[in-house]
Amino acid sequence: MKPKIIAFDADDTLFINEPYFEETEKKFCGLMSDYLSFQGLSQELLKTQVDNLPLYGYGIKGYVLSMIETAVKVSNGTISAKGIQKITDLGKELIQKPIELLDGVEETLEALHGKYKLVVATKGDLKDQQRKLHDSGLGHYFHHIEVMADKQEVNYEKLLGRLEIQAEEFFMIGNSLKSDVLPVLNIGGYAVHVPFHTTWAHEKIDHEIVHPKFTSVTKITDILPLLLK
Amino acid sequence: MKPKIIAFDADDTLFINEPYFEETEKKFCGLMSDYLSFQGLSQELLKTQVDNLPLYGYGIKGYVLSMIETAVKVSNGTISAKGIQKITDLGKELIQKPIELLDGVEETLEALHGKYKLVVATKGDLKDQQRKLHDSGLGHYFHHIEVMADKQEVNYEKLLGRLEIQAEEFFMIGNSLKSDVLPVLNIGGYAVHVPFHTTWAHEKIDHEIVHPKFTSVTKITDILPLLLK
Repeated sequence: MKPKIIAFDADDTLFINEPYFEETEKKFCGLMSDYLSFQGLSQELLKTQVDNLPLYGYGIKGYVLSMIETAVKVSNGTISAKGIQKITDLGKELIQKPIELLDGVEETLEALHGKYKLVVATKGDLKDQQRKLHDSGLGHYFHHIEVMADKQEVNYEKLLGRLEIQAEEFFMIGNSLKSDVLPVLNIGGYAVHVPFHTTWAHEKIDHEIVHPKFTSVTKITDILPLLLK
Repeated sequence: MKPKIIAFDADDTLFINEPYFEETEKKFCGLMSDYLSFQGLSQELLKTQVDNLPLYGYGIKGYVLSMIETAVKVSNGTISAKGIQKITDLGKELIQKPIELLDGVEETLEALHGKYKLVVATKGDLKDQQRKLHDSGLGHYFHHIEVMADKQEVNYEKLLGRLEIQAEEFFMIGNSLKSDVLPVLNIGGYAVHVPFHTTWAHEKIDHEIVHPKFTSVTKITDILPLLLK
């Protein structure tokens, strides 16, 4: 293994993300509790989000538009303008959440910095992701920050083209087996899974991964012995 | 002048954009005509959009969220859920507009292709822009497609860093004096203005530009004599 680029996912790999969405979803379900149970609302919202992915992509603005669409639907067109405003306010609150680095992130980046080219490979909304990276204070560790519209194999192949490296020189670290691990292994790269305690339903996969280029660790600093031999 | 990279803005430089937003705005004003005049609504919407730019950035999803916020405000919290749904539907319609190339674009790219590295430097929403470039069928002309969160000088400087070129090797073509011309001239690059018949109010500037590295042409094919000497 001779990686040239070490790529890090951002959300729930470098800093907290999904818990903020879950907190917002709870507030949304609270607003709409006259119409449906929390579980029913969560299911409706997830369905709307996934249906809208081809149009909206990932990120907070699409999420807010999906909450609004769900609210109109489950209220049978009776939700008030004030209710809609509460939802757009939830979105603005979510956009402005503080950045909370995960344990071991700075230590890991500090140890690898200068020894490898480090990049961020994150999917989502350009504006959201650039703000988060900026606010994280981690920008100086990275050679390149790539915001991808999606993390399919084809998106990783384009990224490798941009970085002018081969797949076997690419080493990806992230919390999503579906987005950070599987597509990277499929195109011939190395991948390390650093699980986070919670995962968005749409990112879950239901099988185990066994692959010679795959490693699973319990915390991000555990990648150091793999890379600093 | 020895440009290494010729960069094209996308919206209203390669293909139609602003007229689609104007069409949507007219429909929005039509929906809300019980509350305020077209002119009053346009002003309110522009104000909301500009206020929201730091949070939402450019692009259709932020535009839809600003229409919703404006609708709640100008209706004094009385707009119905059906009205809100009509607005989200307008957004989905806007996202799916066909791509209409502007006159002379293919001819220009064909003539420059292979002689210079061509890139797209566009601002806005990653998902929107990638879809439009994909649907335009122009992707194969470009070495690189850069979607920028904004087009300030600092954003162009980062782009030059990524492309590993000096400012005087950078030649930018676009329809916006504010976004495509002024910041590029300010950092030392060359810029050509190809006006489009309509410009978003927020992109307008109120002075003329006189600069040794600036050219204004009437149509995109007019850049060819500058670059194919």
